[in-house]
Amino acid sequence: MTKVRVAGFGMSIDGFGAGPDQSLENPLGLAGHDIFQWFFPTRTFRQMVGQEGGETGVDDGFAQRAMQGFGAFILGRNMFGPVRGDWPDDQWKGWWGDNPPYHAPTFILTHYPRAPIEMLGGTTFYFVTDGIESALRKAREAAGARDVKIGGGVETVRQFLRAGHVDEMHLAVAPVALGRGEALFAGLDLRELGYRTVEHVPTERATHIVFAK
Amino acid sequence: MTKVRVAGFGMSIDGFGAGPDQSLENPLGLAGHDIFQWFFPTRTFRQMVGQEGGETGVDDGFAQRAMQGFGAFILGRNMFGPVRGDWPDDQWKGWWGDNPPYHAPTFILTHYPRAPIEMLGGTTFYFVTDGIESALRKAREAAGARDVKIGGGVETVRQFLRAGHVDEMHLAVAPVALGRGEALFAGLDLRELGYRTVEHVPTERATHIVFAK
Repeated sequence: MTKVRVAGFGMSIDGFGAGPDQSLENPLGLAGHDIFQWFFPTRTFRQMVGQEGGETGVDDGFAQRAMQGFGAFILGRNMFGPVRGDWPDDQWKGWWGDNPPYHAPTFILTHYPRAPIEMLGGTTFYFVTDGIESALRKAREAAGARDVKIGGGVETVRQFLRAGHVDEMHLAVAPVALGRGEALFAGLDLRELGYRTVEHVPTERATHIVFAK
Repeated sequence: MTKVRVAGFGMSIDGFGAGPDQSLENPLGLAGHDIFQWFFPTRTFRQMVGQEGGETGVDDGFAQRAMQGFGAFILGRNMFGPVRGDWPDDQWKGWWGDNPPYHAPTFILTHYPRAPIEMLGGTTFYFVTDGIESALRKAREAAGARDVKIGGGVETVRQFLRAGHVDEMHLAVAPVALGRGEALFAGLDLRELGYRTVEHVPTERATHIVFAK
């Protein structure tokens, strides 16, 4: 049965899922790259960006699980790009170039309607203006027997957690403090929401934790 | 030269240094024990409570470092006990019985004056009513060449971090969510305060991180 999963989500030791001041130059916010140091050296990431080599091992295993097996994705507007408010034109097509790493229907939460964009490699971006329940319904339909990934950013993950829709969440906690940024769990009671740690694998670059209901 | 250190401080993955609703029955707050699962099996902890055996290894190494080499301790009032407000009498002498694990002068931050209490094993509790700067000055004097430990709880550690007095902080991050409790870093900008990760050793039970300026 389809699961709704958060996976490969980076967090700093002081609780930030992204740095502050996201921009075109800093899609993850200032210093946000620091929380993905476990991911960049992996073979999975290097393949994503068309490079050879890369590490295999525990970090790469989690990277693979974070990218594979999904039949649909849901992303927040800010995860899709730095544009705010109404779409000025159809120029912006995501951070990822012509062939995004999703390779599946990808639903973007936004208040501003826009026609779908078919990209190379099987990714089509659909813009959903009527809320997370609608996006989830569409994503489940599109995913068939495969899983739905809540791809971020922080606010989107928080909304789906709070609504009780996330079946499983893989967090990669980096051993660094960001100081400022988007707090992932502030005000969320993970225990009351029903989450328990079901997997815990520390590596040199991150502590991998899987929460599930 | 004397360093001011926080050490052996447990935190849940969602950022809590203690559970909610501290009481006589739950000195660490509800579910607070979950964040010290790395500590209880160690030989160091077992010796502290008069038991034999226990694990050696990385967790025990950090446990030792968290307890040894200190010439004075500073504790918040709630770390000392569940009594609030004025001291009703001289009955309460800490959570730890006649021979507390400090074995050095230990300064308790409180708004309510009280005479010092000499315990067995070298611990004397002094009650400091004129703030953290005064407590730190007294602790430094008492410690001589040895280090001063900020022993907790959460609010006390936050005050000393914010004031810039902590030279080094060892955090043991447990792979569990507490959901509620006392947030250790909320509103504190560790980067701006000058802290960087200088050590990072993950184990099965905790991710050990040492911050320093």
